[in-house]
Amino acid sequence: MTLPSLETTPIPGLVVVRLDRRDDDRGFFKENWQREKMLAIGLPDFGPVQNNVSFNASRGVTRGIHTEPWDKFISLATGRIFGAWVDMREGETFGTTFTLEMDTSVAVFVPRGVGNSYQVLEDGTAYTYLVNEHWRPGIAYPALALEDPSAAIDWPIPLSEAIISEKDQNNPALDPATAIAPKKT
Amino acid sequence: MTLPSLETTPIPGLVVVRLDRRDDDRGFFKENWQREKMLAIGLPDFGPVQNNVSFNASRGVTRGIHTEPWDKFISLATGRIFGAWVDMREGETFGTTFTLEMDTSVAVFVPRGVGNSYQVLEDGTAYTYLVNEHWRPGIAYPALALEDPSAAIDWPIPLSEAIISEKDQNNPALDPATAIAPKKT
Ligand SMILES: Cc1cn([C@H]2C[C@H](O)[C@@H](COP(=O)(O)OP(=O)(O)O[C@H]3O[C@H](CO)[C@@H](O)[C@H](O)[C@H]3O)O2)c(=O)[nH]c1=O
Ligand SMILES: Cc1cn([C@H]2C[C@H](O)[C@@H](COP(=O)(O)OP(=O)(O)O[C@H]3O[C@H](CO)[C@@H](O)[C@H](O)[C@H]3O)O2)c(=O)[nH]c1=O
Repeated sequence: MTLPSLETTPIPGLVVVRLDRRDDDRGFFKENWQREKMLAIGLPDFGPVQNNVSFNASRGVTRGIHTEPWDKFISLATGRIFGAWVDMREGETFGTTFTLEMDTSVAVFVPRGVGNSYQVLEDGTAYTYLVNEHWRPGIAYPALALEDPSAAIDWPIPLSEAIISEKDQNNPALDPATAIAPKKT
Repeated sequence: MTLPSLETTPIPGLVVVRLDRRDDDRGFFKENWQREKMLAIGLPDFGPVQNNVSFNASRGVTRGIHTEPWDKFISLATGRIFGAWVDMREGETFGTTFTLEMDTSVAVFVPRGVGNSYQVLEDGTAYTYLVNEHWRPGIAYPALALEDPSAAIDWPIPLSEAIISEKDQNNPALDPATAIAPKKT
């Protein structure tokens, strides 16, 4: 059993998973998420109930920074991105950032309370993720401006040239007063 | 709540799901699988434990026909395929086939005991699926020859021009003696 490998980051609970991608004449095959193996390397048993796909036609599409009230396991079915995360939870690591260039051989587990975003580096990039709560229309969750000066993400493509939704052009700056409290269990 | 819609097929339990794909300037977003909504439209609560991705570099790649011992929920993150299924379960519908051209707005639920295959219609097609049992190295399951004369799948691209793994070039013909018995529960 070839286990994927896990790397920690400066953001507690945010971990990078290197997958066992098998390339051949046809393309590739990968176990993108495999419950038993993910538990064996130390990921939580997060119980996905929803799988979303966002497809990005062009290099430069930039989405985020969204702090959804659920855990996410994110990866790519094809293409390449620059991923950026900001810890939005109250506590010592509030505001800590982590960035990573990702191709189809990498996945990232993003715990609840960590802001998630990405910039597309290749036309035709398909981003896929698993979450452990159902989204509902009208649900509101904190977002952070992509250009926030204190997070200071070093986007490979200048935001002035990026393709960004209207919603994501109006997100607020980092503010400790809005830090996310731990979930009551 | 916009529900996906479900269509039955001549193969019992094999169903086609039309997804709510939301296109915008960036590309698209879709809930590819959403447990609650899938239950609401009548899919079984199949409990996925593994998510696989097979990426296909070129039009013509053809994979199958594989009868895995688990249920699958299959769809595309990008591209287009011709999907073909053959009922391999013992009973009246043994040998029944169903085919469907799929883009990113369609998914198919494939119950255990139904042979699964596809031919890639566009370069760079990413196929993604959820299954409810873990695959293990060395696990053997029935396969069926892509060119089986009795299944007689009408492949859009002639198999002589297709890209097929060595393993899939050596699969047997349809044989009722190897029909799959119902799973003991
Ligand atoms: C998250 C979500 C969204 N939608 C709908 C709402 C919109 O009509 C459309 C696109 O939603 P947007 O919010 O613009 O998508 P996007 O900016 O990519 O952000 C989504 O995807 C991001 C990752 O790609 C997440 O970090 C965000 O929280 C999530 O909202 O899909 C759903 O139908 N179901 C969902 O689960
Ligand atoms: C199914 C599976 C395969 N593998 C490994 C075995 C090989 O080294 C590599 C590719 O496996 P292959 O069996 O050649 O892949 P492929 O012909 O596309 O068939 C797979 O994917 C098909 C759908 O794409 C399924 O219908 C097959 O049952 C499944 O085996 O991935 C895994 O590591 N985990 C898995 O779950």
